Amino acid sequence: MYTKGLHIISTIHTKSDRHLTDVQVFKEKVNDFVTELSLTSVGAVFHDFEGGGFTAVVCLTESHLSIHTWPEYNRITLDVFLSNNSRNNEDRCRALHDRIIEQFEIEKIETENILR
Amino acid sequence: MYTKGLHIISTIHTKSDRHLTDVQVFKEKVNDFVTELSLTSVGAVFHDFEGGGFTAVVCLTESHLSIHTWPEYNRITLDVFLSNNSRNNEDRCRALHDRIIEQFEIEKIETENILR
Repeated sequence: MYTKGLHIISTIHTKSDRHLTDVQVFKEKVNDFVTELSLTSVGAVFHDFEGGGFTAVVCLTESHLSIHTWPEYNRITLDVFLSNNSRNNEDRCRALHDRIIEQFEIEKIETENILR
Repeated sequence: MYTKGLHIISTIHTKSDRHLTDVQVFKEKVNDFVTELSLTSVGAVFHDFEGGGFTAVVCLTESHLSIHTWPEYNRITLDVFLSNNSRNNEDRCRALHDRIIEQFEIEKIETENILR
């Protein structure tokens, strides 16, 4: 039986553009989180926009996370979606989301949780 | 001024597992759609699960699309998110979403549109 997985969709306004322009810093952190939470990457894209923000996606056997940053607007869009194919990953999904957002100076965050 | 982009989130039940197990077919199609709709890829992951479905993510200068297939449940989760940084991409977002879902034999689709 298929058990719906949690997809957390957050749009974040930050106090400054700090950490919104360097994908390498994000890459190191997120790879640590993936390992720490016993998730499995099957491929990733980390892309720096020249003079701008970055886009990163990590594909996981458990689904994916994606992030887009707009330093010019102090804005981040973050998705963390973990399915429950071999075990329940809801706590891991929330933990991964929370570890990522802790990297930024959050002013306001709008979050939707979708079970799918 | 930041103009919110459209993120289409669909969970799809299909009539069969047809087209849910071959990432190469999907890769060719989606690359055609990206070109046709004048979108720009900055990196992608196409991953086949052995004996199972596939996961694919295409990172775009306009944000991303992601798909996960579960042939064992005739199930697909699809996200298409295009920001409006340099032009309004809402129509392109709907067109890309619709071209992708046309590849599958849909029985039921649940869709949420988020502006973010």
